[in-house]
Amino acid sequence: MALIVQKYGGSSVADALRIKEVAQRIVATKERGNQMVVVVSAMGRTTDQLIDLARQVSPQPHERELDLLLSTGELVSCTLMAMALRELGHNAISLSGAQAGIQTDATYSRARILRVDPKRVRKELDRGYIVIVAGFQGITEEMDITTLGRGGSDTTAVALAIALKADHCQIYTDVEGVYTADPRLVPEARKLDEIGYEEMLELASYGAKVMHSRAVELGQLYNMPILVASSFSQTTGTLIHGGMAMEMRNKVSGIAHDTNVAKITVVGVPDRPGVAAALFEPLARAGISVDTIVQNVSIGENITDITFTVARSDLHRALEVVKPASQSVGARECLTDTTLAKVSIVGTGMQNTPGYAARMFRALYEAGINIRLITTSEIRITCIIDEKLIPKAVQALHKAFELEKV
Amino acid sequence: MALIVQKYGGSSVADALRIKEVAQRIVATKERGNQMVVVVSAMGRTTDQLIDLARQVSPQPHERELDLLLSTGELVSCTLMAMALRELGHNAISLSGAQAGIQTDATYSRARILRVDPKRVRKELDRGYIVIVAGFQGITEEMDITTLGRGGSDTTAVALAIALKADHCQIYTDVEGVYTADPRLVPEARKLDEIGYEEMLELASYGAKVMHSRAVELGQLYNMPILVASSFSQTTGTLIHGGMAMEMRNKVSGIAHDTNVAKITVVGVPDRPGVAAALFEPLARAGISVDTIVQNVSIGENITDITFTVARSDLHRALEVVKPASQSVGARECLTDTTLAKVSIVGTGMQNTPGYAARMFRALYEAGINIRLITTSEIRITCIIDEKLIPKAVQALHKAFELEKV
Repeated sequence: MALIVQKYGGSSVADALRIKEVAQRIVATKERGNQMVVVVSAMGRTTDQLIDLARQVSPQPHERELDLLLSTGELVSCTLMAMALRELGHNAISLSGAQAGIQTDATYSRARILRVDPKRVRKELDRGYIVIVAGFQGITEEMDITTLGRGGSDTTAVALAIALKADHCQIYTDVEGVYTADPRLVPEARKLDEIGYEEMLELASYGAKVMHSRAVELGQLYNMPILVASSFSQTTGTLIHGGMAMEMRNKVSGIAHDTNVAKITVVGVPDRPGVAAALFEPLARAGISVDTIVQNVSIGENITDITFTVARSDLHRALEVVKPASQSVGARECLTDTTLAKVSIVGTGMQNTPGYAARMFRALYEAGINIRLITTSEIRITCIIDEKLIPKAVQALHKAFELEKV
Repeated sequence: MALIVQKYGGSSVADALRIKEVAQRIVATKERGNQMVVVVSAMGRTTDQLIDLARQVSPQPHERELDLLLSTGELVSCTLMAMALRELGHNAISLSGAQAGIQTDATYSRARILRVDPKRVRKELDRGYIVIVAGFQGITEEMDITTLGRGGSDTTAVALAIALKADHCQIYTDVEGVYTADPRLVPEARKLDEIGYEEMLELASYGAKVMHSRAVELGQLYNMPILVASSFSQTTGTLIHGGMAMEMRNKVSGIAHDTNVAKITVVGVPDRPGVAAALFEPLARAGISVDTIVQNVSIGENITDITFTVARSDLHRALEVVKPASQSVGARECLTDTTLAKVSIVGTGMQNTPGYAARMFRALYEAGINIRLITTSEIRITCIIDEKLIPKAVQALHKAFELEKV
């Protein structure tokens, strides 16, 4: 008898019909003799609707109140799932994040899980119940309800799987797994049967929408393999794990792209110590992630330009802090560009194999694509290019690295 | 500085606009130097919509799951109210029933409050916060969420007022108070400035929709005065309390009517001990309240008929248990009638003043209304008549007892 933690996202529980279909899948797994813990997200667009409602009352809703409000979305879906399972003749019980022992800090809207106390979950499993847990939420020491922010339900599932020492952790979504590139851009894109944690992290951070990097990090930290698969089909999905075979190393796994990019250039910055800190500390305090940072080497003049990228959705907030900061360090002006996007190749061992970068740049050059900025990690090379050229770039790179072949 | 517990019902928080309007009212009371605890119901028809959703998944939703599902309705409205108050520059915090210390038994869908531990509410009041509490819900010792059933949010408010030793308990609704009769039937109906607990209980039980009798009973038990008033106007409402002036006694307070009535007659019942118990015990076990019971005196034959009324909405469930029970005691048949309704006069001291009954029967007779069944309590006389004749009956009685005069 295996203990399986499954997670179903919003599109998998979008309405009563989908909930009943997913209930059938859960029952099938249960009837093969497994113990089941099922984490669910809010139905379809519920969370967005609740945010809209809050904004009708308060343009900037108070975070503690907003978290308690949003937590209701997952309570609705998890109680409905428990009802659907009972309708199929199985004992099932829904638990809020609090009841499931998901204990977090008090950073509302993006709380971190401090520990999981799975006492109640175990008790219900021991008496043969299927346990449905509301994803995306937890409770503080003061008994206040928090939400975990983006990727929250995936994180709930992985954290529960770790705390319960589950045999399997399965994330069900509306895509069939992790692909070598976005299949909408590259028809030849191939689904990967497996991928390493690190490569998945790079793919997730650099635009693959399959799974949020936070849950992958947690899986990596505790070495919990995570299966990503579709709740709409019976195909096998992609296993994210750490035990990749040797021969899988030193290979490009996939092409990621991300159009949620804005470039900010602070022009005419005095080239003296402390300037970068003066610019980036306010951004960090505002909770804005900065991606690529490039500082042009200044020759002679003691004046330099600093260019960096943020998520396009953060641009407005970023400028609110960068403009005063750049004035205070004596910079000339701030320029922005929202016509750019990122394309990345991800694979292990790239850093030590210069050939990858050269092949990437050549492929883009041959496709007539101009590279604006370059940034690399140990297992990723990213080029920032015109957003309009993204489909062409992804197709060219997929072909250049022969990703259609196993 | 007074401590005031207010409750706002579903129509008072039906949408974002209404929530903002009610927030203004709360702030006005707060700014007069009061401490405020505010209990809110779910927005408008939210509870019905959640029940519909549950029924799409499961025709008979499991009660524990349904309670957790329904509890989300009040969480939504109370967080929105807290946001609206913050928008007006006041510190406010929303608390779930669990956080507010509403501890109940585990009778899902109609849990009883065992105790209220207002520790958290007090803490928030002490730091000057307006405390918004989700009505209608509580938590069991096992940390499971319950709902309190009909009249639940009123009960939450009165229970909190008692536990906090509040100076005032105010129930805001969509009517202006307690009237001498339904103003839609009797244009001359007069709003009462005050009414005793017992009369209010009879009015509530016998059809006045202003407030559920359960919360009134709780107020009576702990002698907590309850103001019922409209959240849509600034009129004063009706104070329900126990300290009625002597000269208010021995007077008809109001006319109640209720069309949610079904009559069941069990025909040809052997007239022997234990028969009534055999009929009514199964109804009690099924949780169905029986109202009027009339047993015809049997002369000679040792055969009798037993007639009783139940809520029309309970008729189907009632027959499911009454039919087998009446067969088992050897009754001939069960007849039902769903064309009837109740009209009642309510006032203290009626039992000892036969004139009231006579005046009631004469007024109905003069209006050409045939009385089918009569039932009385110490402070109420109820006649069961044709449902179609209810408006005529209420008008005739209102006039006969001169209720338009103070």
